[in-house]
This record gives sequence, C-alpha cells and structure tokens, in this order.
Amino acid sequence: MTTFMDVHHGMHDMTPEQLDEAHRADLAIEGDEDVHFAHAWADTDSGTLFCLSEGPSAEAVRRVHERAGHPADEIHPVTLSV
Amino acid sequence: MTTFMDVHHGMHDMTPEQLDEAHRADLAIEGDEDVHFAHAWADTDSGTLFCLSEGPSAEAVRRVHERAGHPADEIHPVTLSV
Repeated sequence: MTTFMDVHHGMHDMTPEQLDEAHRADLAIEGDEDVHFAHAWADTDSGTLFCLSEGPSAEAVRRVHERAGHPADEIHPVTLSV
Repeated sequence: MTTFMDVHHGMHDMTPEQLDEAHRADLAIEGDEDVHFAHAWADTDSGTLFCLSEGPSAEAVRRVHERAGHPADEIHPVTLSV
C-alpha cells in the first residue's frame, strides 16, 4: 500500500457540511478499491483541498474520488515522509 | 493557533536524509515563531513537498521555512478539516 496526497482546486466557499458530505461519499465506496481516505484539509479562501489516503495505486484513489463526484486535480504518491 | 498546509515545488530527487535534515532545520528554530511542523509528505517524482504545521500566522510559518533555507511556494491556512 502507498500513501497518496491528492489536491483539488476550485473548492472555494465549501462549508463544513459540504466537506463532511464529500468525505462520507468517499468513505462509503473506498472499500471497493481497497483505499482509505484518512484526512482532508481545506483552504476555502484559495479553494484548495488536500486529501491524505492509502491505497494500492493512484488510479484506485482517482476512481474513488471520481465516483464520489469530486475528481482530484493532482494525485501524488508519497515517496518520503517525516 | 491555525493549522497550515504549505507546498514546495521543484523538490525532485530529494533523499530521505535530505528530508530529515530539512525537517530538523525547521524544528531547531520553529520555537522562535511559536510554530510546530508536524508532518511532511514528499512526492519526489513530481518534486512536490507538503508540510503540515500549526502556528500563529502564515507569515510565521513562512519565516521559519525561509530561515531554514527552504522557502515555501504556497502556504494555505486550513479553514476546514476532517
């Protein structure tokens, strides 16, 4: 399993309820792809959302976000962390 | 205190030792600004580094990274998280 950080742009003015709903939509289907979305951090002023996940591949992460209705703009495999 | 996600570009081919050294350089001086760098995740293929911190302001985070020799390209205050 690999850790991924994905980034969404254009997420301005997201409310707490909208973020919770989006995260729940991921959690509801992530098991189909053996992915787990652990955390998400949003800067609602710049419209940037960062999601930390674990999964077998970037494609698996991409498919979960797409099926949940919020495709990621960038998906970065984490090769180093501290 | 606010949570921040900052992003560095152009960090290709960073080694584990270089990431550890950079993180230790932040930790050594972060107290001067009442900042704490909690985690960092690097995609060394795309050269993207994400750092999660807490601190009193984006400027404080910016000053620590600059003094440590690796200025951030983006510093995002986290307004929502799950």
